Parts: sequence; structure tokens; C-alpha cells
Amino acid sequence: MPDPLVISIDAMGGDHGPSVVAPGVARAIALLDGRDVRFLLHGDEAELNAAVARLPALQGRVEIRPSERVVANDEKPARAMRRGKGTSMWNAIESVKTGEAHAAVSSGNTGALSAISILQLRMIGEMQRPALVASWPTLRGVTTVLDVGANIDCDAERLVQFAILGAAYHRAVHGSAHPTVGVLNVGSEEEKGHEEVKGANRLLRATQFDLQYHGFVEGDDIAKGTVDVIVTDGFTGNVALKTAEGLARFFSTEMRAAFTGSLLGMIGAFIAQGALRRMRERLDPGGGGPFLGLNGIVVKSHGGADARGFAAAIRLAVDLARSDFAAEIDRNLKRLTAAAEAGEAPTSEAGDAADEDKSGERSSA
Amino acid sequence: MPDPLVISIDAMGGDHGPSVVAPGVARAIALLDGRDVRFLLHGDEAELNAAVARLPALQGRVEIRPSERVVANDEKPARAMRRGKGTSMWNAIESVKTGEAHAAVSSGNTGALSAISILQLRMIGEMQRPALVASWPTLRGVTTVLDVGANIDCDAERLVQFAILGAAYHRAVHGSAHPTVGVLNVGSEEEKGHEEVKGANRLLRATQFDLQYHGFVEGDDIAKGTVDVIVTDGFTGNVALKTAEGLARFFSTEMRAAFTGSLLGMIGAFIAQGALRRMRERLDPGGGGPFLGLNGIVVKSHGGADARGFAAAIRLAVDLARSDFAAEIDRNLKRLTAAAEAGEAPTSEAGDAADEDKSGERSSA
Repeated sequence: MPDPLVISIDAMGGDHGPSVVAPGVARAIALLDGRDVRFLLHGDEAELNAAVARLPALQGRVEIRPSERVVANDEKPARAMRRGKGTSMWNAIESVKTGEAHAAVSSGNTGALSAISILQLRMIGEMQRPALVASWPTLRGVTTVLDVGANIDCDAERLVQFAILGAAYHRAVHGSAHPTVGVLNVGSEEEKGHEEVKGANRLLRATQFDLQYHGFVEGDDIAKGTVDVIVTDGFTGNVALKTAEGLARFFSTEMRAAFTGSLLGMIGAFIAQGALRRMRERLDPGGGGPFLGLNGIVVKSHGGADARGFAAAIRLAVDLARSDFAAEIDRNLKRLTAAAEAGEAPTSEAGDAADEDKSGERSSA
Repeated sequence: MPDPLVISIDAMGGDHGPSVVAPGVARAIALLDGRDVRFLLHGDEAELNAAVARLPALQGRVEIRPSERVVANDEKPARAMRRGKGTSMWNAIESVKTGEAHAAVSSGNTGALSAISILQLRMIGEMQRPALVASWPTLRGVTTVLDVGANIDCDAERLVQFAILGAAYHRAVHGSAHPTVGVLNVGSEEEKGHEEVKGANRLLRATQFDLQYHGFVEGDDIAKGTVDVIVTDGFTGNVALKTAEGLARFFSTEMRAAFTGSLLGMIGAFIAQGALRRMRERLDPGGGGPFLGLNGIVVKSHGGADARGFAAAIRLAVDLARSDFAAEIDRNLKRLTAAAEAGEAPTSEAGDAADEDKSGERSSA
């Protein structure tokens, strides 16, 4: 466990730049409660000097790394890859690549951050792009759902990779010693579903990974909290997440209508709205979360995050960097490779072939 | 428009059999308000004679057709196909096949009903099994979503068939002259998604069907009511529907917790619970709905339906049988075939090949 831990920050990202990032770092320092974490702040030197000068909590904990350029919020991922060098986002990721920092946090453009991270850090295994994770509020706590939009086509091995990544993530962040994992399907019986989920199910049953494999789960198991980690392809995961988001908004509107017309109703609506708003915020797929599957820890913070939101993203990066996260993933991916080579892996040629054609999805979700 | 319309009823299906079916028919007659609809009641002769004798409304409107056997609620679809002959379910469907009835209604076992319907009526086009439809409550009314669980793998042409079926259904049931149709995807841009949705998008843009094609929609467009009909494969549709169901249950529980502890809270909870329960009932994928894609009209009623629910299923069957539904589908499928033969159809070999392997899904959802 490295001490001091160093977190690299893209201080120019998001809707607000240093005016939110600097107080976010200050807040994170307070939350970390004396643990020795240092920060590299990448961005405009004059602006960052001014922001840091206003916040005594940052003295001695941050180092400003001047970057003259910024990745625009609407920059295309392909362009960010070609021309991103020297931007605060690029430099924030580069600090992880060189080993100077243990993790990077940015609230910049999701597509560009993903593309620059892939280019500099490279993906593990044969993944094409980082999986996006939703931390789904459930009746029992939080379920980690992945992929919610980055990898549209997934063969059986990719789904097993998500299981490995999701379990390591859930353990690092939620502290569960033995995360349970389910594969999302249209029924719980073994013969249900398409070849990709059946193949993933066989591999997860046949191989010993650092996780408890539960079997297939269905859509309603997400909110029930049946398992800690739910694995699915990025198409299905994205649709499920956005469907839930839309439903939360629908309920808000319905509740408001049901409660209208009385003082009682207005109080009821106020209570209901709060719960529903929190739910919507947590489900927002544009929100913060880790990019899983990179050789290095990168956390995306919400573009519109306030200091509190940015501090939460930093906290997540610290939790991942301090844990056994990276080593656990490495260990389990080796088991997957061995299982696949031993012929236990059912190769889904349909999935593989289709996947090659779709490299334009990097910026999705 | 045939007059009198004849509806064939599996009077032994569901959890309650004739004790719900007979009052359901009586209720439907009252709802139909003098329109001349007759009913063939298939089932146990003595039991049906007794049930009909108790309901004066049925006099002169029903004809009892004795069937000595019944399909069990847990009967496997394959067994129902082999051994279903002579059951009330089989005979109800056979009346549609012979042309004696214009539509059939059953609240029996979904998988068996689907299998027996396919065997006797055959699918249109090259569909493998009937698409399941959800009537999703939205901010603007109701959106027809299909397939929500029957066809797990769908190539581009199958998705276009769903568009045709869904538009005809939405027009027949909700009376919209020009239903708008969207293809469910992970983004609205043309380059997003996998080959199957891209192919369906191209076909729907290139060909003139009796529907207004909107383009891609996302998960949150379902509850928004962005379009009248949303088309997706049975895997994604089933996950979306069950995710929504789970979320509705989650909200109910959260609301109850938020409102607990005061009279005010209990009243608020009561109001909220009602709205949420209605939502859950409407989203229930085991609920009633048409089997779309058969040469003939078959409506599945909820297995646990009461007389009111059964009457609603009859009403749906009557609406479909009285409308231009079948002719419209036939007309548009011919356009699809012509477009496909003219080479406008992008064949997705990955989807096709994978699909051949999955005939075990008949009973899903």
C-alpha cells in the first residue's frame, strides 16, 4: 500500500474547472482524515495558483502541473486522441502511466477521457474499451452493474472479464469480502438466453475466481439487490439503466400529479421528490464512476459535479488505489486465460465477428 | 367487418377456470354494449353448463364446446404440442384455424399457449414465435413495446417485422391513425449500436410502411412516451421490462419507509402505493397481451386474472378482430419482402447463425 498516495487531477475538466475542482480536493482531504494523500493538479498555472491560495487546506498537499491546453467538452474522442497531448486531461493520465500517480480523476468529456486513457494506459486482457459501471441503489444497499454502455457486443469471455472487474471493484469500494455475481438474463434456468450468456455461465461455473458465482439473474433482481455484481453487455446494460432513469422521472411526475391540490399533498410530494431525485442522480449514466479494465486507475467524475461530487470521485480513486484491486484483477484474468486455453471457454464466433465492426462506439453512453 | 363476431374461449385456463371465465364473458358482453359478439366456450361440459345457467347475460350469446382435457399450468410447451390435442386450449385455437372464430382468448400457461398457437396457426413471415407486447404507461399515454421476451435473438428483418406488427396493434387498439415507431438503441445517432439495430434503421428509413418511422430511441424514451411503438429484441425488451418492474417495487418500499411514522405519512403512502401498484400491474410481463405474428388472433389473459381482467382480454381480441389489423400486417410484410429481395435488407449473418441454435426459448417470459 503506497504511502503517500498520489492522485492526479485533471483540474480543468467538467463544467466548472478549478472553481469546483480545488474545493473538491480540499473536501476530499478533510474526508480522508489525516491519511497522507497528495495531489497533482494539472491545468492553467495562474488559475490554479489563485484557487489554491484561497484554500489553506491545500497547502503542502498539492503540486500544480502547468498544462496549457484543455480538452473541450464537445471534443470528439478520435480528435482528442490525435491532438490531446499537452492538455490537462492527457497530462493527468500520463502521470498514472509514468507511475508518478496511483490514480487519475477527471470530470472532463467521457468519450475523450476514455480514448486518451486507452491510448496511454492500454486495456487489460483483450478488452476494447473501459467498462462503465452503475452503482445501483437496491433494497439491500448497492449493486454494481456493468457494462452500462461502453462495450456494445460482448462474447462470453468479455462477460467473465466484467465479472472479475466488477467483483474486484465491489470488494475495493464496498468492502464485501466475497462479492456475489450474477449474469443478467431473461430467466434463471440454465437453458435460457443467448449463446454469450450461456457461455459466460459455463465459464463462471467451471472456473474458480475470487468471487461467488450466483448464476443467472433477471431484470427485477437489480433493484432487489439479489447479488452484489450484475454482469451484462453494454447494450443491455445501457438500456436497463436509461429505462430506470426514465421510470424514476415518470414516477416523479405522477407523484406530483397525485399529490397536487392540498397542503398534505405538497408535503407528501416534497418527501417523495427527494427520494426520487436522489435515485435519479445515482442512476445517471453520465455521472461519476470508474473506467474498469485499464492498466491503471481512472475515475470519471460527473461533468456537472459540485465540490462534494468531485470529492466523492477522489474518494473512490483513493479506495481503489489503496486496495488489492489491480492485483486481484490480474490474478483472476490469468485464471480466465488458463481456463480459455484449456478449452473450457466456449468461443462465441458470432459475438467476436460482430464486434470487430464496431469500433465507433467508444464515446457511447 | 364480420358480424356477428365470434370469439373462441379457453374456459378452463388460468388459476380459476370457469368461475372467472364465465363472469368475465358476461362482463365483456356488457362492455361491448349491444354489439353482436358470440362466444364459443371450450371446456368441461357440466361445469360450463352450470356456470352459464347462473348468468342470464350469457343466454343466447354462448355455445358450449365440450373438451375433456385441460393443459396443466406447469405443462412443458413441447409436451403440450405433442399431447395437447383435445384440450380446451387446443380446441379454442382450432376454432380460429377452421375459421369458425375470429379470435381466441386463454388465460392458460403462456408457453403451452404459444406452442399450440404456433403449431396450429403457423407464424407469418419467417418469425419463429409470437412476439410478446408490453403496454407501457408513459407521460403521454401508453407505448407499445415489443418483443418483451419471446424472440431472444433478432436480426434486422425481424426487428422490422416487430415494427409492422406493433404499429398495426397500436392502431387497432389505441386508434392512432399514424403510429410513430422507434428502434431501441444506446444512442440516437445513426452510427450507434450493433448491426441488427443499424440494419433495421436502414430498412425502416428506406421502405414505406404504414407507420411513421422516428429513428432510434433510448431507454428513457420508453417512459417519456417519445413514440407510440418501441421495437427491440426479446432479450433487451425482457430485461428492460423486468428492470422497470423491480424498480417500481423498490419505489413502493422506499416510499413506505419515507412515509412511515405519522398519519400524514400513512395517507401519503396510501396515495403513492395506489399509483405504484397500478404501474406494476401494467408492467407485469406475465400479464395479458396479444401474441403477435400468428396467422390468427390469440390473446393471452393473465393466469391470475379476475373477471374484469378476463373481460379486458376479450375486449382486446374484439378490437383486433374488428379492425384492419390482419390485412395491414399482410400488406406491410409484402413490402418488407420486396425491399429485402431488392437488396435493401442488410442481412445480419451473425444474428441469423446464432438464432438457429436457440429454439429452446419458446416458453420464456
